[in-house]
Amino acid sequence: MPIYKAPVEDVNFLLNDVFQIDRYDNLPGFSDASADVREAILSEAAKLSEEVLQPLNRVGDLEGCVRHDDGSVTTPKGFKEAFKQVVEGGWLGLSAPTEYGGQGLPITLSQTVTEFQCSANMAFSMYGGLTVGATAALLVHGNAEQKAMYVPKMVAGEWTGTMNLTEPQCGTDLGLLRTKAVKQADGSYKITGTKIFISAGEHDLASNIIHLVLARIEGAPAGIKGVSLFVVPKFLVNADGSPGARNGVTCGSIEHKMGIHGNSTCVMNYDSATGWLIGEENKGMQGMFVMMNEARLGVAVQGLAQSEVAYQNAAAYARDRLQGRALSGVKAPDKPADPIIVHPDVRRTLLSIRAFNEAARAMVVWTSLKSDLAHRSSDPKDRQDADDHLGLMTPVLKGFLTETGFANAVQAQQMYGGHGYIAEQGMEQFVRDARIAMIYEGANGIQALDLVGRKLPRDGGRAVMAFFGEVGAFAKENAGDEAMKPFVAPLSTALGHLQQATTWLMQNAMAKPDNAGAAATDYMHLFGLVTLGYMWAKMAKVVHGKIAATGPTDYLSTKLVTGRFFMERVLPATTTHLARIQSGSATIMELAAEAF
Amino acid sequence: MPIYKAPVEDVNFLLNDVFQIDRYDNLPGFSDASADVREAILSEAAKLSEEVLQPLNRVGDLEGCVRHDDGSVTTPKGFKEAFKQVVEGGWLGLSAPTEYGGQGLPITLSQTVTEFQCSANMAFSMYGGLTVGATAALLVHGNAEQKAMYVPKMVAGEWTGTMNLTEPQCGTDLGLLRTKAVKQADGSYKITGTKIFISAGEHDLASNIIHLVLARIEGAPAGIKGVSLFVVPKFLVNADGSPGARNGVTCGSIEHKMGIHGNSTCVMNYDSATGWLIGEENKGMQGMFVMMNEARLGVAVQGLAQSEVAYQNAAAYARDRLQGRALSGVKAPDKPADPIIVHPDVRRTLLSIRAFNEAARAMVVWTSLKSDLAHRSSDPKDRQDADDHLGLMTPVLKGFLTETGFANAVQAQQMYGGHGYIAEQGMEQFVRDARIAMIYEGANGIQALDLVGRKLPRDGGRAVMAFFGEVGAFAKENAGDEAMKPFVAPLSTALGHLQQATTWLMQNAMAKPDNAGAAATDYMHLFGLVTLGYMWAKMAKVVHGKIAATGPTDYLSTKLVTGRFFMERVLPATTTHLARIQSGSATIMELAAEAF
Repeated sequence: MPIYKAPVEDVNFLLNDVFQIDRYDNLPGFSDASADVREAILSEAAKLSEEVLQPLNRVGDLEGCVRHDDGSVTTPKGFKEAFKQVVEGGWLGLSAPTEYGGQGLPITLSQTVTEFQCSANMAFSMYGGLTVGATAALLVHGNAEQKAMYVPKMVAGEWTGTMNLTEPQCGTDLGLLRTKAVKQADGSYKITGTKIFISAGEHDLASNIIHLVLARIEGAPAGIKGVSLFVVPKFLVNADGSPGARNGVTCGSIEHKMGIHGNSTCVMNYDSATGWLIGEENKGMQGMFVMMNEARLGVAVQGLAQSEVAYQNAAAYARDRLQGRALSGVKAPDKPADPIIVHPDVRRTLLSIRAFNEAARAMVVWTSLKSDLAHRSSDPKDRQDADDHLGLMTPVLKGFLTETGFANAVQAQQMYGGHGYIAEQGMEQFVRDARIAMIYEGANGIQALDLVGRKLPRDGGRAVMAFFGEVGAFAKENAGDEAMKPFVAPLSTALGHLQQATTWLMQNAMAKPDNAGAAATDYMHLFGLVTLGYMWAKMAKVVHGKIAATGPTDYLSTKLVTGRFFMERVLPATTTHLARIQSGSATIMELAAEAF
Repeated sequence: MPIYKAPVEDVNFLLNDVFQIDRYDNLPGFSDASADVREAILSEAAKLSEEVLQPLNRVGDLEGCVRHDDGSVTTPKGFKEAFKQVVEGGWLGLSAPTEYGGQGLPITLSQTVTEFQCSANMAFSMYGGLTVGATAALLVHGNAEQKAMYVPKMVAGEWTGTMNLTEPQCGTDLGLLRTKAVKQADGSYKITGTKIFISAGEHDLASNIIHLVLARIEGAPAGIKGVSLFVVPKFLVNADGSPGARNGVTCGSIEHKMGIHGNSTCVMNYDSATGWLIGEENKGMQGMFVMMNEARLGVAVQGLAQSEVAYQNAAAYARDRLQGRALSGVKAPDKPADPIIVHPDVRRTLLSIRAFNEAARAMVVWTSLKSDLAHRSSDPKDRQDADDHLGLMTPVLKGFLTETGFANAVQAQQMYGGHGYIAEQGMEQFVRDARIAMIYEGANGIQALDLVGRKLPRDGGRAVMAFFGEVGAFAKENAGDEAMKPFVAPLSTALGHLQQATTWLMQNAMAKPDNAGAAATDYMHLFGLVTLGYMWAKMAKVVHGKIAATGPTDYLSTKLVTGRFFMERVLPATTTHLARIQSGSATIMELAAEAF
């Protein structure tokens, strides 16, 4: 059976030492998240994830969700009870506004809890995750009545939420969607159409399910400019707030899919279902973007989370599994063979996963802190800077963390040899579950295009210039510090590659957008690598400070070695990405479609 | 439903034009494989794979193999009839010696047929593939009686074969194996022990199963030097050659695994089963190596094969799926959206898979030809050169082709967006099936160690020097050819990186073997990239010649574009691998095992 131990020490290091979130005590909710409160929350979150959610991970994979003839769906054994614990612990409302029953704590904190839950049980965590995303959209774009009707119940976890975008003929290109909305005399709409791939579309965990649905109002313009957002509850809500009559939305079937079997991925049929407009007519994408940006961060965390739990198991296995002898001579003479962790190739594999995980976690905390600043700061300049950062980093986080996270799960599985291919060991489930994160909430190719085509040029490149400025200043400040050399020198080289790539795009992609498209995925990876390199350099700096102040610990020493590994072994890939980007799009665009 | 079309034109190009196998008419069997015979065989092989095997691929995945209470195993519906067709077509004996009923045709030819069958149905093709491997071991190390008793039936496909190495406590390190062999008065042995992960260990496709089993004879030395190889038939063979009494070997259970569900992966229990020694006592690894080298080439082909079929489906989907508009302006104004193949990132993905497939196929043909030369040439120098090549390239083929093949299947799946995650589409099966090829027949980390630790230094580096000499000479000869510049220049750079890496290993790994271990996987990838680069340059040269002679065709023009893509976009990764190799092992070896 797989193991999982929430990385509480690592989270504390990031919150307390690297990002020092106590500095933000002036922001709403931050003073409620003092060090001891954080400690208590993280320790309880760890316990819940390790003891309740993780043991259900394989159960969920084996049993999956079952749709009954009446359209109802049963989740795997134990999910209902576990969800009850999540609800009773108030975990879904951790960062929700206090006026709706939430605890108003920083996203910076709740995102780390999300990581624990995703590591322990990704399929399970999605029921709550989607609810938080739907709540965010309602909070930003819903009217007062809608907020009052839905948000408190969703924050409490009594009701869950979904997002309904995809249809058979439309995924990325939402302008193609056909689901219809017909306005009624009372101001409501009748929604009719079919949505596919709806995560948590139907289940038995909550007394109501609040669907947010993209549809086209009769007579609306074609394309994306005619798309509106609606709230469609499974049960219409009575005047007293209790669930009333069944609405015309049903689960038509559950998809058979590669992984996340514990989450019900539904085909949802809307048959004159009653819905209400959220925000303005034909401005549905605005609300959906709130939800998607929220969700994209969550999906990035899934990539990290699967990489983390896969690493923990692979490392434990490598310490235990006896096979062969060390190249440099016998290490365990009292045993029939050495543990495979003596082998450089095994260590290389483990370190490359770990070096990613720790820096990716830092990147998530950093960006979550910016999210808090963007939403809570009273200073417009701070809000704008934070929002710039958030916009720029969201596609990088989603694309780079999920792709690397998946690749890491595959490498962790590899440490098990043949045993990694066997279901009972659990490693292959991490791979299958992690795979979806590269696809949903905007496939990674779309993230790369969003980065290159939208986020980079936005506001004259203000966000990317701020990032270059920050990293460049860090490198300059620490250039004279001998201990920082193994970090600063490679970071500067990598930053140079990213800047060259950016210049190349400015010079070559304006007139010829195919050059941007051809460069996009490599640019996203290059950006991700430089960001993780910066995270490592920042962390190393903090570690040096702590060691100078209070002496070395195992945790701190390991951190430095892991960081050096990243700079030596992972970061050099920036060279290759730059070369690819600079090769342009001519060859790629040369063939006719039929030639493929 | 997934499609598959055997790449017959591409195989013909390689056999006829690039490697011109008609030049080898003096080798036994080659003159029987004249161009028209090859054409007929490839066309029949294509038909069998496309029409019989491919339609059973998903059936096999869904149904899997079922073990009954009596230990018998039923394969998925249709497998039995399909196997009968394979047997009746003589496909298992294509390259087997004529004196045992085979057709004695070149491996160069039969290996291309293997690719078709693996693309169509990897799990199914393993039943035959393992039989061919077991037959090879019997042919090399079996005595006359053993050969006469087993080989003709195995060549005919009446009986199938297995290889039994792994035990719960021993995978890579076969010296740890515990299965016991006790010599009997009649010269036979009683074999007792448990073997795991035995592919095709029990099934209903053949009237007998011939197990080749590694075991330790009572009183044998400890470790790998006390391991012997035995032949243990499921049914003892009567004097007339018919299957007789049931032997004491049974299938204890079937593993639940990530993929290749159509192949029965068995726990095999040996309970005083009667077996006969193959070759000498305590020299079991020699026979096993024959089988494993055969199998490693076959597994390399599986990597290519899954990449090929995944590519074909992804390309077809990209041509059909309408979503969004081209960055450079609308391409299909009559349709609601453009097909996604207009997007540079989609083309980049497809081309990177295709550029690998075509060069990997060339590498397989090249190496198979060397295998034929090693076995059939009358010139000892030719045999030695060919054997050098085979030894050097086997770990590269196995490790590099399976790892890239898997990554390509993942990328092909990505082209489908959410649909790629859904089982019915078949893309996720390619990923799950391809995954095992990185693991079995020596996990890829072991291949890398074999390359760096054994194959590279062997005979004073004779094999690698010959390879460098050949590639270097090609680059020199074509340096003045303007049309070849896009191929020769990047090839020379990449070869330079490989030579630098090799020099670094010579200087740093002798005294400190951990430097070799830390470099191994990157060195294997670097080697694979350079080899594929060489294949592309060779193919480009041939294409230029053909175009000059008879004018361009779509096939030839596409080949050149695909090749240029490889040189521009794939080959530059050699820089990163070199940097990683040169970073050494110090950081990797620094942490204590407990720190991981």
